[in-house]
Amino acid sequence: MALLGNAVVAQSGGPTAVINSSVCGVIQEWNKKDAPGMLFGARYGIKGVLAEELVTLPSTDHPFVAGLMHTPGAALGSCRHKIKDGREYEELITVFKKHNIRYFFLVGGNDSMDTANKLHLLSRQMNYEMRVIGVPKTVDNDLPFTDHCPGYGSAAKYLATTVLETGLDLRGIISNNKVVILEAMGRHTGWLAAAAALAKREDGDAPHLIYLPEVAFSRENFIRDVRETYQKVGHVYIVASEGLVDGHGNYICADDNRDGFGHVQLGGLADTLKRFVEEEMPVKVRCNILGSTQRSAMHYASLTDSREAHLVGSEAVKLALRGLSGLMVTLVRDGQEGYVCNPGAVALSKVANVEKKFPQEWITPGGNYVTEEFIRYAAPLIQGEVTIPTKNGLPDYCSWQTAL
Amino acid sequence: MALLGNAVVAQSGGPTAVINSSVCGVIQEWNKKDAPGMLFGARYGIKGVLAEELVTLPSTDHPFVAGLMHTPGAALGSCRHKIKDGREYEELITVFKKHNIRYFFLVGGNDSMDTANKLHLLSRQMNYEMRVIGVPKTVDNDLPFTDHCPGYGSAAKYLATTVLETGLDLRGIISNNKVVILEAMGRHTGWLAAAAALAKREDGDAPHLIYLPEVAFSRENFIRDVRETYQKVGHVYIVASEGLVDGHGNYICADDNRDGFGHVQLGGLADTLKRFVEEEMPVKVRCNILGSTQRSAMHYASLTDSREAHLVGSEAVKLALRGLSGLMVTLVRDGQEGYVCNPGAVALSKVANVEKKFPQEWITPGGNYVTEEFIRYAAPLIQGEVTIPTKNGLPDYCSWQTAL
Repeated sequence: MALLGNAVVAQSGGPTAVINSSVCGVIQEWNKKDAPGMLFGARYGIKGVLAEELVTLPSTDHPFVAGLMHTPGAALGSCRHKIKDGREYEELITVFKKHNIRYFFLVGGNDSMDTANKLHLLSRQMNYEMRVIGVPKTVDNDLPFTDHCPGYGSAAKYLATTVLETGLDLRGIISNNKVVILEAMGRHTGWLAAAAALAKREDGDAPHLIYLPEVAFSRENFIRDVRETYQKVGHVYIVASEGLVDGHGNYICADDNRDGFGHVQLGGLADTLKRFVEEEMPVKVRCNILGSTQRSAMHYASLTDSREAHLVGSEAVKLALRGLSGLMVTLVRDGQEGYVCNPGAVALSKVANVEKKFPQEWITPGGNYVTEEFIRYAAPLIQGEVTIPTKNGLPDYCSWQTAL
Repeated sequence: MALLGNAVVAQSGGPTAVINSSVCGVIQEWNKKDAPGMLFGARYGIKGVLAEELVTLPSTDHPFVAGLMHTPGAALGSCRHKIKDGREYEELITVFKKHNIRYFFLVGGNDSMDTANKLHLLSRQMNYEMRVIGVPKTVDNDLPFTDHCPGYGSAAKYLATTVLETGLDLRGIISNNKVVILEAMGRHTGWLAAAAALAKREDGDAPHLIYLPEVAFSRENFIRDVRETYQKVGHVYIVASEGLVDGHGNYICADDNRDGFGHVQLGGLADTLKRFVEEEMPVKVRCNILGSTQRSAMHYASLTDSREAHLVGSEAVKLALRGLSGLMVTLVRDGQEGYVCNPGAVALSKVANVEKKFPQEWITPGGNYVTEEFIRYAAPLIQGEVTIPTKNGLPDYCSWQTAL
């Protein structure tokens, strides 16, 4: 007998191209059979729960629900808000009690899994029976205990496509611009920058150099790498994570901006590297700084990623309806030939605030590229394209403002 | 009776997503009936002609030729090189004579049309009969006497899609980042930045403010605009051309880099605007600096643009075989209902070094947005998507290194 009560699904942190596919998975699974209650969406994440901004989500056959599968950005709204220990957590439980919320699905990254875990523990402590399940989401691919994170495959596909295209652009023209630096998202981990390697088909193709936060950055080594590639290839395509640090762990480029979780907001890494090169070599450098395009480029998203994002959403509902709580859904890669990924689960307590670094063994000895083993890991994640309806020559994304 | 002799097609300046479609058009038209000679491709543009790096282009049914229709970057190679008056022009004619080149097709922008015009005039002066035809190409859309330029539609479609997606990203999350600045290409004209307006479907949608080089930039007005939008919408999406200038014609952001034509190479406009905002408002600004992605994003190119790029290439051959020289192919929009564009022609002398500015009457009175009339002009140019074959989850672009 299922626990009777209502459910809330909320989105947290930076959106991904497929974050809404997970919400779609939650909605469709919840509505499959006799649901134990209503399903609400929190407007703007956990802030919406605190403010009791809960909207009834439409049923499975509503066009908005299908539209979630091809619409980027957080359709319900998301936020960056670190819940204050103590009072704010208790307020959340109070809201849950008031609306008889017994199921809470939080789509997010490391910080959000900490929030979900604390809610799970507090509800037990307060003897309020509820089930809290985390749904993994991050373009950074840095959640532990899951083979990879929904959102990563699409960002990786877009980034690699961009490197492929701008690499052809660089190679095809003789001009003063001999060096391109593409700045990839990645505050603490290099998963996204590494994905650029998927673009290389032949020796000499872009990218030539990849720098990750997992390797202490040295200006001297960097310039040596750039010189060597320039002499060999005639131009240089560099991909670098925004969060590069030196041997002391200091950001190569940082300003004093901090986000709601207290993280340093980075910017200007590419410009710093550009300056390093132009100070020492007689070449001009162009910077491509993709910014938020990386986490919202649904127009060339990975179909595999989109389907898996849906899968983790529906699995979260299944786990909760089976009576489980305090878990994050994971993706488990089947060891067999071909690529198969099945849903699994891990305790939220193990995931909360833990970052999965890019493995040292997948970084080449020079510290400036990634290995074939990484390519074998990442290639299946970018397969297939999502069919996007168009209107007037542009993607026809669904509008939550008008639908909800 | 056609003038017997060989032909050369060359690409010039910055590539576009569809610059190779024009080469495809030249190849397919040249090979249609009894060609008066061989067709060569110049490697790396006019520099390849000077160096006699001419490669025989494959016939129409070669897979490389079909691949040109969906491959970005200059497939033959391009360059930024201003031919020196006098000696270098005479050297070009010497190369043409040596290889019996009687037809020259130059795919390029304003500067290239000047080069083509001078070659046309010099060949006459030297009594060397040849036909020189310019093929328009530029994401900047700034060639005069043509309704628009091949390359613009695809860049516009990509840019508008990116604004649509990153606009949803911005709107969907409550965080410190309340302002996004997207820096668009456009040294002297705002055509590309203006295209961002195609992304807006409803009031409140991104973009909210668009700044073009055709309007003298004022920091005071800019901050007033940003404040007003922030109060009204809660966040602000700004699109700005890299080449913004103040009332005295000085770049808002310039360094001392100059390209082969002596143009100032810009960079850092977005960072300058970010600083302006953060100095005066308690918000954080994110910069999306698309760089060379704008001119190479074939993965979401406009089918209309791709077809027109092919059309202007084939029309160039038709004009030359009809005995004409000293012309640039144009696109002439039919005034009827629906969108129809036919090829036309204009004297190279009229086009050379002339830039078509964004019309003042298409800029709103506040100088910070574009009118519905511009939308009606630009919307037809971004219609349709090019089908791109994929391989391992990424576009399968053709490789000129292996094919030629």
